[in-house]
Amino acid sequence: MSESIADLGEFGLIGQLTAGLAQGSAVSVGPGDDAAVFLVDNRAVSSIDVFVEGVHFRRDWSSAHDVGRKTVAAAVADIEAMGAAPVSLLAAFAAPSDLPAAWALELGAGLREECERAGVSLVGGDMSASRDITVALAVVGELRGGDPVLRSGARPGDVVAYRGRLGWAAAGLAALRRGFRSPRAVVQAFQCPTPPYGAGIEAAAFGASAMIDTSDGLLADLGHIACASGVLIDLAAAQLETAEPIQAVAQATGRPPLEFVLSGGEDHALAATFPYGQVPGGWTVIGRVADPAGSPPTVLVDGQAWPGPAGWAHFG
Amino acid sequence: MSESIADLGEFGLIGQLTAGLAQGSAVSVGPGDDAAVFLVDNRAVSSIDVFVEGVHFRRDWSSAHDVGRKTVAAAVADIEAMGAAPVSLLAAFAAPSDLPAAWALELGAGLREECERAGVSLVGGDMSASRDITVALAVVGELRGGDPVLRSGARPGDVVAYRGRLGWAAAGLAALRRGFRSPRAVVQAFQCPTPPYGAGIEAAAFGASAMIDTSDGLLADLGHIACASGVLIDLAAAQLETAEPIQAVAQATGRPPLEFVLSGGEDHALAATFPYGQVPGGWTVIGRVADPAGSPPTVLVDGQAWPGPAGWAHFG
Repeated sequence: MSESIADLGEFGLIGQLTAGLAQGSAVSVGPGDDAAVFLVDNRAVSSIDVFVEGVHFRRDWSSAHDVGRKTVAAAVADIEAMGAAPVSLLAAFAAPSDLPAAWALELGAGLREECERAGVSLVGGDMSASRDITVALAVVGELRGGDPVLRSGARPGDVVAYRGRLGWAAAGLAALRRGFRSPRAVVQAFQCPTPPYGAGIEAAAFGASAMIDTSDGLLADLGHIACASGVLIDLAAAQLETAEPIQAVAQATGRPPLEFVLSGGEDHALAATFPYGQVPGGWTVIGRVADPAGSPPTVLVDGQAWPGPAGWAHFG
Repeated sequence: MSESIADLGEFGLIGQLTAGLAQGSAVSVGPGDDAAVFLVDNRAVSSIDVFVEGVHFRRDWSSAHDVGRKTVAAAVADIEAMGAAPVSLLAAFAAPSDLPAAWALELGAGLREECERAGVSLVGGDMSASRDITVALAVVGELRGGDPVLRSGARPGDVVAYRGRLGWAAAGLAALRRGFRSPRAVVQAFQCPTPPYGAGIEAAAFGASAMIDTSDGLLADLGHIACASGVLIDLAAAQLETAEPIQAVAQATGRPPLEFVLSGGEDHALAATFPYGQVPGGWTVIGRVADPAGSPPTVLVDGQAWPGPAGWAHFG
């Protein structure tokens, strides 16, 4: 029987999780006191996300390291989507006391690795017993002099663009559901999404009028922008690239490749609207913002309602 | 069968939880976008706490409203203990889908009520399904020009003082464990602790050298200060008031009244060390800081090791 987190004890586990933990230059007090202390712009941005085994991840589909990386990616993407840069991250962890200590330590290693990639300092945490493995991450970010990019700022005449990947995670999930571990590229994209770190604050500097991260799927998330802004968004299907491994999964599952791109969540790409001519490099223009002309705000594809599923249900 | 949170749905529940939610003047974007936006001092303070049913609370001992209030009190007390003032609070909530919606809404009402008492804005949240009711709260605070008060700053010659209540919650828990709902004062103190909001930043302004909140019990928490500061702390038993309802529970349980005061947790009083003569009004001096003279840092009572239990185990 391998050592459990109960064997290691809370203080032992915290000691191993925080050993050698590097802090960014903004952090003056990290883990170990009642709270962390760090420098942040006066206009701060913050959000919290909670992830539960069986709802957001499965241990047979993702390693503990993957879960750590994915939860940080998802949490930081919300800060990026405000046009902000992440500064500090707090982690709460609850798990059964018989969970192997190695699993918790690998989760911590994944958290730390993705925090480094995202440029955010892991400054503190808390832990408890519980039946389901549960991770809650709270991130504080800063606008660095810019204005927050809300969901409500899209205006007719703007263009719609995205940066990152679309449909890869959903294709990976479809493969895993069929019992496959390939195509590797999409399975890895599901296990460890790769948000375009740094693209959020750059988009704000270029004048993005509205932005969101694609956690629930492109159509659903652009739908939030359409509703909040009171606009119509029309996507051009020809602009939506379907990469080769997505086409392979689409063929194997008998679903249209575009469905993965339009409805697949958990890629944590950024989708934004920009005034015409202000789209930064690295973004792909995929549509335009129009006046709904009295109709309810919605998202169309080539001027038509998309007939497939719009939303994204977590597998739980 | 009463309506469950699954019946209400995530968006329905969020809508009801955030309806009419007041925001402090520092908050420019509250719930509803990817993240919240608020003004905070450049030197920010933050911490996260996680609370799980069966570990931190029981539904037969505490109402949902109580749980909401207590979790906010505990989370904000960590910010107070740094000598800071709370600014924003994020809440993550996970629960079984058959949880009565009324329970979740009462929890939300308790969260909101205690946020108002503590002077903190509830700016966002997230929710998920899970088997155990789980609440994770992340608070961001600010130092308002002061320096953070760490656990490591106590110096020989300082005095030790506390503000708030000591032993009340533990006496209430002892009563509940015996199946009683009285004495009401201590049972209520367990259900809804009353941290001395505002006392943390005031203590910092008076020059507090070290500070902590009494979540684990006075001896255990002062032990953290003694270890981090490398000092000996000597408490004077005669200075430690044992209020009448604590005496009543002590008599009924055959335990010394002082045990509740020294070892009882979850009152979220503040305990701090101050240079001699700099203790602000409202604090009770209970001991002094001395050089350990080569011995390991520890906490004594009237110059002796306390023979009873030092720590506090949550009842789970």
